[in-house]
Amino acid sequence: MDNRPIGVFDSGLGGLTAVRALRRLLPSEDLIYFGDTSRVPYGGRSRETILKYARQDMRFLRSFDLKAILIACGTVSTTSLPTLQRENDLPMVGVVEPTCRRAVDMTANKKVGLIATLASVRSGVYEKTIAALDPEIQVYAKACPLFVPLVENGRFQPGDPVIEIVAREYLEEMRSTDMDTLILGCTHYPLLTDIIGRIMGPEVTLISAGEESAYELKRTLKAQELLADPSRSGDAAYYVSDRVEDFEKIAAWFLQEDLHHEANQIDIDRY
Amino acid sequence: MDNRPIGVFDSGLGGLTAVRALRRLLPSEDLIYFGDTSRVPYGGRSRETILKYARQDMRFLRSFDLKAILIACGTVSTTSLPTLQRENDLPMVGVVEPTCRRAVDMTANKKVGLIATLASVRSGVYEKTIAALDPEIQVYAKACPLFVPLVENGRFQPGDPVIEIVAREYLEEMRSTDMDTLILGCTHYPLLTDIIGRIMGPEVTLISAGEESAYELKRTLKAQELLADPSRSGDAAYYVSDRVEDFEKIAAWFLQEDLHHEANQIDIDRY
Repeated sequence: MDNRPIGVFDSGLGGLTAVRALRRLLPSEDLIYFGDTSRVPYGGRSRETILKYARQDMRFLRSFDLKAILIACGTVSTTSLPTLQRENDLPMVGVVEPTCRRAVDMTANKKVGLIATLASVRSGVYEKTIAALDPEIQVYAKACPLFVPLVENGRFQPGDPVIEIVAREYLEEMRSTDMDTLILGCTHYPLLTDIIGRIMGPEVTLISAGEESAYELKRTLKAQELLADPSRSGDAAYYVSDRVEDFEKIAAWFLQEDLHHEANQIDIDRY
Repeated sequence: MDNRPIGVFDSGLGGLTAVRALRRLLPSEDLIYFGDTSRVPYGGRSRETILKYARQDMRFLRSFDLKAILIACGTVSTTSLPTLQRENDLPMVGVVEPTCRRAVDMTANKKVGLIATLASVRSGVYEKTIAALDPEIQVYAKACPLFVPLVENGRFQPGDPVIEIVAREYLEEMRSTDMDTLILGCTHYPLLTDIIGRIMGPEVTLISAGEESAYELKRTLKAQELLADPSRSGDAAYYVSDRVEDFEKIAAWFLQEDLHHEANQIDIDRY
């Protein structure tokens, strides 16, 4: 039993969909979230810069006494996870591998779709990870660059004509395949689950990267006997690197619950 | 006479609409453009972060021997221009003042609209600048946070249902006033001129921030006898902080001409 908090970080606020899953799966755990909102998005940067930023994010989180870390950022998960794992002696979970494992488990016809940011699709890491698990699986990848700005501007409600048109366009070619499993490879996308689900139809299983990484973290904590006292009620603290003014509103979208915590702003360059 | 180049920078590629105006107005001048494409957009970020980024952009540009700088970024112009002017001993032109002067000249009924990014609208700088020029003028300001990502994803063509719906929503309250002049306070917006113009109607004059700042720079160079030899033909070099692969295509949208230059990628974190 270990009541120390779990650290979670993302380049921005999308990682809060992983926090939402963690709070449901692990209600006794304390969480410390860091969103690097002053430097979001990481996707277009060089590997060296991403690693530099990820190391700073880690150093900030490790200023707390943590028992584990969830990297709720696709770009860091795909580029820097092995290095960060080597440099830090605590359990660390990323989003790619658990998500791919779940997709491989779920697909019956071995046809899996992936929607993600441009950088994640370009990296090819999801395809590589799936191929290592089952080389027969065919992956259809599609970048959806407008999903993040639309979600961040609150346009994720079913019936909003703008998100409906954009989603239909992005998913059109996916629908013309007979894939049965679709990875939502960006932590912003769970807010679009209803819209994407309706377009793809009930025969397609949607896999959320944030949620799968939360399951993986629970498995890891259990295996290493690091779970918190189940009688306690966990709390969460939120840190960001840019202005905190809109945090409560936007965070409530991702967490799908009212938030009674202000975020604290920190200067990530100091770490 | 001074044949040294002019530096131009923007958070992304929108500032190329100012480059387009400069090339028309000052065909003998060499231009060095920097677009901070790895950190675009600046518009939603805090003043502190924007100033930090703008200082890095300046340091990169000043690694060249420049005679003047045009800040083709509405967000930097509204939040950081006086500080940058204090810190740098060369002529520097932003987009706000020339744009406001033009709007004050053009309005007959003293009702002026402003559309811009969230940070620019929040700054209140356009209102303050217009009030200093003519305190009787009423300004209607509206942030249009989705215009930049939509333009950057190529959705600026009249008839595209997504941009048409978003533009109509943003401009609805503007149309209910009887303003006769509308400032396009972001250098991305000139690509939306046809759509905005059709929604607002022919009685509303659109003022482009990028174009007005180019006129202002020409006036400044002339007054300080810094114009280049008029017999020479100016060239332009392009630098960005993100991948250069898509630069040529997107730059051609903003410049409205075919581009025969590749961009060079630099690491802005080093400046």
